[in-house]
Amino acid sequence: MGSFHIGGREVVIKGKTAPKVELTPGVPSNIDPNETYAVEQMYAQYFVPSTVKCKYPLLLWHGAWLTGATYETTPDGREGWLNYFVKHGWPVYLSDAVERGRAGWAPFPDVFTGDPIFLTKENARARFRLEGSQFPMEAYDQFVKQAVPRWTTNNKATIAAYTQLVDKVCPCVILVHSQSGLFGAMVAEARPEKVKALVMVEPANGGANPAALKNVPILAVYGDFIDQDPRWSKIKAVVGKYYEAVRMAGGSVDIYELPKMGIKGNSHMVMMDKNSDQVAGVIQNWLTRRGLYN
Amino acid sequence: MGSFHIGGREVVIKGKTAPKVELTPGVPSNIDPNETYAVEQMYAQYFVPSTVKCKYPLLLWHGAWLTGATYETTPDGREGWLNYFVKHGWPVYLSDAVERGRAGWAPFPDVFTGDPIFLTKENARARFRLEGSQFPMEAYDQFVKQAVPRWTTNNKATIAAYTQLVDKVCPCVILVHSQSGLFGAMVAEARPEKVKALVMVEPANGGANPAALKNVPILAVYGDFIDQDPRWSKIKAVVGKYYEAVRMAGGSVDIYELPKMGIKGNSHMVMMDKNSDQVAGVIQNWLTRRGLYN
Repeated sequence: MGSFHIGGREVVIKGKTAPKVELTPGVPSNIDPNETYAVEQMYAQYFVPSTVKCKYPLLLWHGAWLTGATYETTPDGREGWLNYFVKHGWPVYLSDAVERGRAGWAPFPDVFTGDPIFLTKENARARFRLEGSQFPMEAYDQFVKQAVPRWTTNNKATIAAYTQLVDKVCPCVILVHSQSGLFGAMVAEARPEKVKALVMVEPANGGANPAALKNVPILAVYGDFIDQDPRWSKIKAVVGKYYEAVRMAGGSVDIYELPKMGIKGNSHMVMMDKNSDQVAGVIQNWLTRRGLYN
Repeated sequence: MGSFHIGGREVVIKGKTAPKVELTPGVPSNIDPNETYAVEQMYAQYFVPSTVKCKYPLLLWHGAWLTGATYETTPDGREGWLNYFVKHGWPVYLSDAVERGRAGWAPFPDVFTGDPIFLTKENARARFRLEGSQFPMEAYDQFVKQAVPRWTTNNKATIAAYTQLVDKVCPCVILVHSQSGLFGAMVAEARPEKVKALVMVEPANGGANPAALKNVPILAVYGDFIDQDPRWSKIKAVVGKYYEAVRMAGGSVDIYELPKMGIKGNSHMVMMDKNSDQVAGVIQNWLTRRGLYN
């Protein structure tokens, strides 16, 4: 196992006032904010099992307000999808996208545009369709602590960094969730020869050039209660048009609506739901049928 | 392996203007900033080796502007202290302190006081005594990407969260670096029965109640070039008074100045220097002599 940062650029900032700081009592700390900043990099952490049972590594990309912690231990303390796939013999790359977690974030408004947006405790519950679902609500407070601020203005930088990650560690399989549906689709469109399959778990967006994915098999996975949720039914319809366009270009998109397969009650945070291993198994089976698992 | 968030509190914010956001084109996103925020939690990630060779887990706490990534792969791609100690049979807890990395951060000035301070590329070089040292300067750009913003106003919250971490996973050995010297000393003073040893790698501060550590063995480790560096020689002298006070109270403090032991050229980022494994070995030997390793 190991980790690295990748992507980003350097920016020089001028015209700021230096703060007066004593980090050790009596010892002035020299801090000049008018210097060079490393910005828009991302962070990746990899875990290689002792016995590898697949052809390519698996990249797990998180959604909005979240970090790689999404795929680690579930809020109620069970093993997450990271452990599931490592135990099944996949080398797994977990990442914190640009602006999140260990990727760090840049001064705003100097570098990042606009203000950060925070996920509140009230909002997460509705936004992720948790109420009455298989989500372990008894551990909701633990889940809310995972949220980190996000911007809405960093898509270009995030896609650039993820593209560099793919150039470094792929060919691979990419599994995206929610916001990273956009990132996965855009990066796969830019590097279709490097992405051997794209698993889209409730993506919030598709890409811009669907024909580029005609040779990249796609699996889309949806949980429960989507038709009753005005926001999620709209999102599903928007991304549905993208799947259609990929198919029209000759591509393959399998859409798994879990309730129709007899798997009931899943929230948007499928990888944390009580039946998270069952859903991981569905994905694992699809990857196996696609010839990506020995 | 697994992870969790711990500590923190909930804060309700009022009086903010809701941003207008469409995260999926055509689908308005409902975001109300006047709700409840989870703030001041921290993040911990643990790795348990298949064969445990010690009595207690080892907690690795990072310094200012940094995260748990400090102890992962070195900037030039070698295995870091996380891997070193896991391979030596220690269960290791890596953490991102309050305000850093996967711990997330809170709205400011609403919750966090003051502005975040960024580490620039120019500043890191001098601050961490890297020039002409064993630090792998060819990978300096990689190191700079690890830096995340920090505040100077969160010590109390950080100590509270670390204390909860210790209550959850200790008895243990804690290894601190730089800024976390303060946190390690303060938490060990509050929980002396739970901290079986405190390894302080170039701490920027000691604690407030040295007598509390009379039964907690301390190892302090210092790299090279400190006497020639006005800032670091002052910091070392300030913390030196704390060691003296611990000794006066009957405690044990071993101070290892690496150059005097024939280990030359270490920077402040000892765990990333080219001889990082050699220094880890020095710490490992001390822990063994203290009866903490089988």
